[in-house]
Amino acid sequence: MGSKHTTRAQDYSKWYNELVQRADLAEHSDVRGCMIIKPYGFAIWERMKEVLDQKFKETGHSNAYFPLFIPKSYLSKEASHVEGFAKECAVVTHYRLKNAEDGSGVVVDPKAKLEEELIVRPTSETIIWNSYRNWIQSYRDLPILINQWANVVRWEMRTRLFLRTAEFLWQEGHTAHATAQEAQDETSKMLEVYADFAEQYMAMPVVKGRKTESERFAGAEDTLCIEALMQDGKALQAGTSHFLGQNFAKAFDVKFADKEGKLEHVWATSWGVSTRLMGALIMSHSDDEGLVLPPLLAPIQVVGIPIYRNPEDLKKISDKFDALSASFKAKGISFKYDDDDNRRPGWKFSEYETKGIPVRLAMGARDLENGKIEVARRDKKTKEVIAYEGSDVFVEKLLAQIQNELFDKAQSFRSEKTSEANDFQSFKDLVNGGGFVSAHWDGTSETENKIKEETQATIRCIPLDQVKEEGACVYSGKPSTGRVLFAKAY
Amino acid sequence: MGSKHTTRAQDYSKWYNELVQRADLAEHSDVRGCMIIKPYGFAIWERMKEVLDQKFKETGHSNAYFPLFIPKSYLSKEASHVEGFAKECAVVTHYRLKNAEDGSGVVVDPKAKLEEELIVRPTSETIIWNSYRNWIQSYRDLPILINQWANVVRWEMRTRLFLRTAEFLWQEGHTAHATAQEAQDETSKMLEVYADFAEQYMAMPVVKGRKTESERFAGAEDTLCIEALMQDGKALQAGTSHFLGQNFAKAFDVKFADKEGKLEHVWATSWGVSTRLMGALIMSHSDDEGLVLPPLLAPIQVVGIPIYRNPEDLKKISDKFDALSASFKAKGISFKYDDDDNRRPGWKFSEYETKGIPVRLAMGARDLENGKIEVARRDKKTKEVIAYEGSDVFVEKLLAQIQNELFDKAQSFRSEKTSEANDFQSFKDLVNGGGFVSAHWDGTSETENKIKEETQATIRCIPLDQVKEEGACVYSGKPSTGRVLFAKAY
Repeated sequence: MGSKHTTRAQDYSKWYNELVQRADLAEHSDVRGCMIIKPYGFAIWERMKEVLDQKFKETGHSNAYFPLFIPKSYLSKEASHVEGFAKECAVVTHYRLKNAEDGSGVVVDPKAKLEEELIVRPTSETIIWNSYRNWIQSYRDLPILINQWANVVRWEMRTRLFLRTAEFLWQEGHTAHATAQEAQDETSKMLEVYADFAEQYMAMPVVKGRKTESERFAGAEDTLCIEALMQDGKALQAGTSHFLGQNFAKAFDVKFADKEGKLEHVWATSWGVSTRLMGALIMSHSDDEGLVLPPLLAPIQVVGIPIYRNPEDLKKISDKFDALSASFKAKGISFKYDDDDNRRPGWKFSEYETKGIPVRLAMGARDLENGKIEVARRDKKTKEVIAYEGSDVFVEKLLAQIQNELFDKAQSFRSEKTSEANDFQSFKDLVNGGGFVSAHWDGTSETENKIKEETQATIRCIPLDQVKEEGACVYSGKPSTGRVLFAKAY
Repeated sequence: MGSKHTTRAQDYSKWYNELVQRADLAEHSDVRGCMIIKPYGFAIWERMKEVLDQKFKETGHSNAYFPLFIPKSYLSKEASHVEGFAKECAVVTHYRLKNAEDGSGVVVDPKAKLEEELIVRPTSETIIWNSYRNWIQSYRDLPILINQWANVVRWEMRTRLFLRTAEFLWQEGHTAHATAQEAQDETSKMLEVYADFAEQYMAMPVVKGRKTESERFAGAEDTLCIEALMQDGKALQAGTSHFLGQNFAKAFDVKFADKEGKLEHVWATSWGVSTRLMGALIMSHSDDEGLVLPPLLAPIQVVGIPIYRNPEDLKKISDKFDALSASFKAKGISFKYDDDDNRRPGWKFSEYETKGIPVRLAMGARDLENGKIEVARRDKKTKEVIAYEGSDVFVEKLLAQIQNELFDKAQSFRSEKTSEANDFQSFKDLVNGGGFVSAHWDGTSETENKIKEETQATIRCIPLDQVKEEGACVYSGKPSTGRVLFAKAY
């Protein structure tokens, strides 16, 4: 099968684009930069949403919904925010179309021009903090712990399915607190939620760290992030959690009376992950044959395929699969039985391999006679014939094992691709080879920019577990107190 | 408490607006016509989504996601669709802002004008059928059964929270079929799903019917609907399911090869319900004190309130509530224990009454001694003291009883407010008194329009269970073969 498709070694980028379409996850729409998320891709995103949403609720957050449109003037209220977000955005200027006088269709009605243009939200800090002003009077109204699942638009020039699209789906948490400490704690807590999700569900190891000043979110005082490593050695920022200080409270005049009745500006955080995680998931585990999904996020965890020559055999095999199906249901394992008579087993094997179903079961007439069933792992492409009796328990354990082994494999890969550089020549060599490069940096944006210009590598983060270590900047030779993580990135 | 707020009798519309805000469900944003759905309101909407989503999946549908933006020219491809939807919509004309030269903020960059304007989707038939063209080649690709949860925008001039807003949340199903019959069956099936949801979960009786030609969805050949009656006697369209014939397939050139290899246009349906259901839910059951929620959609079904004078009592009472809480959890009943020391019991009673929590439990020191607990019903405002032992089972049954009785009450109300009119004078009197009026109609749009002009009543639907009955049109006296349902409506 592999030979028909582009392999990772041949052209990683092309492999990715083909895979997203072959596995029926998403496609480009006719609208520039906007994607269509197809049912199978959306089912994976729904699993992600479900798990994350539960984690947000367990940590005390509620969902709400704020308007899609933001008045243009709101963006200007926070100085660095407008610089970061106002430039490439979708601008609504009119609210009506009318029939063209020449009968050629519809045209914008010039009489229906908005007094103030509306921006399709690129992120919702401004519209939300404008609301919080009316919701917060006293310390009793705090904290506010709100999350929103929404679509947002950033007019990207170069787009790639899931990784960078003009419209994307995400969640954005926006919290308000009485003290800086409480907001900082929230920022850290949500980073942990993201890291746990990435590692435990996506089976994707991440480095938790802090962005440098130049890579911070526009309007934040501190940006924490999780960074993952893709199979081509490029890093991918998989989630961010921002401590916004009092910047938005000041911009939107949001104050609260503390216990002594003194008015103070409110402290803020925001945090988000997006459909970009789909790209990260795909690139973490998949192979030249197709998608590889960790069981905990697979919409279908196990598929069963009957191999038969006559209706009598099919009936007997189906009875066996029916019993298994009931057992899987009781165990909370999602199972699909594919007895579609229009497709041959070989076609089905290939189809479910492409779609990354973690475990495939097959049973033929001889298996039936012998009380056996064939179990195949998608990740390792191994198969074995086991006793039908107890195969439900076997599969349950196998799913947990696959989940763990996918993580271990990704972690080993990352370890192999993480190295230390102590001079600029080896830094360049290592960066070009792909992977994380841990190196001393003098802490200036100037050096950071020069390294980026010369190598295309950026500082992915200052790891939260950074070890204090005296050293010399790999570029300038100036003193440094610890290593930061560089890589080329998505 | 009632005296502080507008009552339904005083001013129904004002009562509604106040209630939506008092119960903390939603509020107007600064963006014209766009609402903010607050956490408590959104939690109710999430329950609705969860139930509906499960019903869609059980009937074979998958979720997907299509772009927010629709190229202007797409709207023009289906002639009646553009008439219905292109007029009042949000138009994106530019994709960039820039700093104003006078330093006054940001302005639209005239250089970043789109070649073709984009419309923020008012509904997604056009963008979806443009995609289906590439997805459908043969009968093997059919049916396509897709649903989308999304935000849509229609530039309404007069807006009301939940009932009519410029931006609203909804789901839109879009299915493609090989035959007209199959598409018509789908249209009916989804109407049943909506009716079951309305009656079994919202406890809101609905009339299932067919829209007249002039009330059909723009682009449909047949529109089925469910119509509910609000407490002020006005009808509310709560959901629609459309048979679209081959209109969109022809407009977007979507054909399939049938089993004989002959190319045919594909048959379509679409169907949707929106956050408007929140308005219907509120107006079906709530009273002058506040919201009344059916237990199956209440985010919190039972609240427990301790009444204590000292920490020792509180500790003992809390132990009792902890045990109840565990029991409720096992039964799948959502329970909140409110032992907040900053609020008095009276404040809490009033708060949970306003928010419509179906059952309130209270326990004081004397109840504790006597092994008793007080149980109060929100809907009937009755309370009784029962044995603490077995109170979990009592509450479980009570919740089911409340759910049923809310439906029965709403159904009795609707029966009282449904009458037959056989001449135009009594028709006018009945319509002005509020409620459904069942009357003969000659089947012409002309008569329908004249009745609307003279009475403000519209034909809500031709009931699916309409009885064949010879009669004379209540307005024109011309012959009719059955009664249709009129009402003033939201």
